[in-house]
Amino acid sequence: MKTLTVDLGDRSYPIYTGSDLISRSEFYTPHIRGGDVVIVTNETVAPLYLSQVQQALSGFNVIDVVLPDGEQWKTLDTVNRIFDHLLEARHTRTTTLVALGGGVVGDMTGFAAACYQRGVDFIQVPTTLLSQVDSSVGGKTGVNHPLGKNMIGAFHQPNCVIADISTLSTLPDNELSAGLAEVIKYGLICDGEFYQWLQDNMAGLLARQPELLTEAVIRSCENKARVVSEDEKESGRRAILNLGHTFGHAIETHQGYGKWLHGEAVATGMIMAADLSARQGWIDRNETQRLAVLLESARLPVRPPSDMSANDFLSLMRVDKKVLDGTLRLVLLHAVGDAVVTSDFSTDYLDATLAEFVD
Amino acid sequence: MKTLTVDLGDRSYPIYTGSDLISRSEFYTPHIRGGDVVIVTNETVAPLYLSQVQQALSGFNVIDVVLPDGEQWKTLDTVNRIFDHLLEARHTRTTTLVALGGGVVGDMTGFAAACYQRGVDFIQVPTTLLSQVDSSVGGKTGVNHPLGKNMIGAFHQPNCVIADISTLSTLPDNELSAGLAEVIKYGLICDGEFYQWLQDNMAGLLARQPELLTEAVIRSCENKARVVSEDEKESGRRAILNLGHTFGHAIETHQGYGKWLHGEAVATGMIMAADLSARQGWIDRNETQRLAVLLESARLPVRPPSDMSANDFLSLMRVDKKVLDGTLRLVLLHAVGDAVVTSDFSTDYLDATLAEFVD
Repeated sequence: MKTLTVDLGDRSYPIYTGSDLISRSEFYTPHIRGGDVVIVTNETVAPLYLSQVQQALSGFNVIDVVLPDGEQWKTLDTVNRIFDHLLEARHTRTTTLVALGGGVVGDMTGFAAACYQRGVDFIQVPTTLLSQVDSSVGGKTGVNHPLGKNMIGAFHQPNCVIADISTLSTLPDNELSAGLAEVIKYGLICDGEFYQWLQDNMAGLLARQPELLTEAVIRSCENKARVVSEDEKESGRRAILNLGHTFGHAIETHQGYGKWLHGEAVATGMIMAADLSARQGWIDRNETQRLAVLLESARLPVRPPSDMSANDFLSLMRVDKKVLDGTLRLVLLHAVGDAVVTSDFSTDYLDATLAEFVD
Repeated sequence: MKTLTVDLGDRSYPIYTGSDLISRSEFYTPHIRGGDVVIVTNETVAPLYLSQVQQALSGFNVIDVVLPDGEQWKTLDTVNRIFDHLLEARHTRTTTLVALGGGVVGDMTGFAAACYQRGVDFIQVPTTLLSQVDSSVGGKTGVNHPLGKNMIGAFHQPNCVIADISTLSTLPDNELSAGLAEVIKYGLICDGEFYQWLQDNMAGLLARQPELLTEAVIRSCENKARVVSEDEKESGRRAILNLGHTFGHAIETHQGYGKWLHGEAVATGMIMAADLSARQGWIDRNETQRLAVLLESARLPVRPPSDMSANDFLSLMRVDKKVLDGTLRLVLLHAVGDAVVTSDFSTDYLDATLAEFVD
């Protein structure tokens, strides 16, 4: 078991990573200040892991909330169901919410914790690779709106994160790949050595070798934590974490939530961002090819859906949160391991990238 | 015009108070960083003041959202309507929300600002005495839930508050009185001199003399700002601001939102808290009588609704936010001008107070 501390002053918190952690009470108890706990999970995860977490929390007054599974349920209405349960059980400001599941459960539970009585404690127990490397760090919580993804939310830091690698054994192959997209992202944006390590170890990661997965989670969280510690409120450098996300959100929004996995959309978005970076002359075209090979070896898509036009992209990207005052800002690469947030790119090159990638 | 600065470090903001302020752009412009503004108001206030605020903001790209009027609309669903408008107009993170109306509009607009894209700017333009003295300071935003008042929300500070006394000219008499309940509260909890001033000037306040109302707003905001500056997150002393609110919330919840005005419920709650304080021997029984006379002179109720039982109070007070780990905490008076948050009171005396006040 390894512990990584996300350094945020008086809101710092530990990430515990390793095998067989979720049933061990010692990872939860020091981070719970009242007697009441709510475990929020979904219909897929509950049969697999809920009883283990309940056992770890047997010293507390525990209720559980089992939500439907899927991004289409990441709505204000679903969060309101969490509030219903909290109020019916008369939980007060000292309650602790435990998010057991992937990013959707984590985002909604975190948002519920941010808003219940104007803020209560919560613990993340991410059970997907994506949520272990992405949602665990940064304090972003929230829900979708029919007109945009993650448009409603709050910054709210967990008391701790318990990232149990063993839970990845039940993860579907496509979700493992989607998580690897974000792992690859950390190499691309700020850790060239890790990027090389991923090229060397992709086969073992796909074979779910525990020591490799642990290393990938730890290294990803370290990278994200370093970027987030530098810029908690996403005013500047933190936005490099969105490499591939502006193109990717356009894909997700166009297809409707849940059709493409987030990581799949991000993978395609990253290759598009790399293509634009190469057109700008910032990276070598060979690097774009090398990234495509890596993404494909991780069984990730490198082309957007065939029914998307260039105008679909442009229209959907304009409502993306990275747009400041109407100017489209993108995360691009100055080199592998060195991303930058910029609006200083040629719109002709953007058009060329879109033309290259749409049918 | 007087300016009071609420000192919260890098989130400090000014409260502008005086007559004829809302149509003057100079109070808004320094606090708006983008080109987009959304004015959120309700059907009652819009015909009276919306055009004046639109005129003051004519240099910006302004849309307005006119909500139905009433506490029963203070819900997540209504806040979601604000999100609909923001997203349909493609407003980004640099938008500014302007809350034009009373506490309900302010609470919902502030909560929408707290959550839209995880936080955007907002300006409060309170048009009721209650919201000018109460909602303007403290950063509390949120909505009600069928099982409890203000159970969902966030702390989110405005960029500035424009408290225009002139808007009180159109305020119904009962709402003026409800605002005076909170004004009286500030005297009771931490400013005995102000409490005396209110006794001397209640007739002039009810006659809406502008200089007296300005003084009452300024003095109330100063008192609240001082308490809030000491304790922004309501961990301790700030809770004295809830004098009368635990009893009062029980009344509001029992009657259903909107039957009793918040200030009316607080007035009755304050006299009940004073009665309990007198039974504890902390204040003289004459002070309870003196408070009852002041509240009645402000045309406020000093008895709970006749259909409420002692058990109704006890049951509803247990879900109140001031309950920590099942122990009922109340704001009581050690003296006029000196409130305390305590669970150290006799439950027999509480029963006696309830018996005294219920029929």
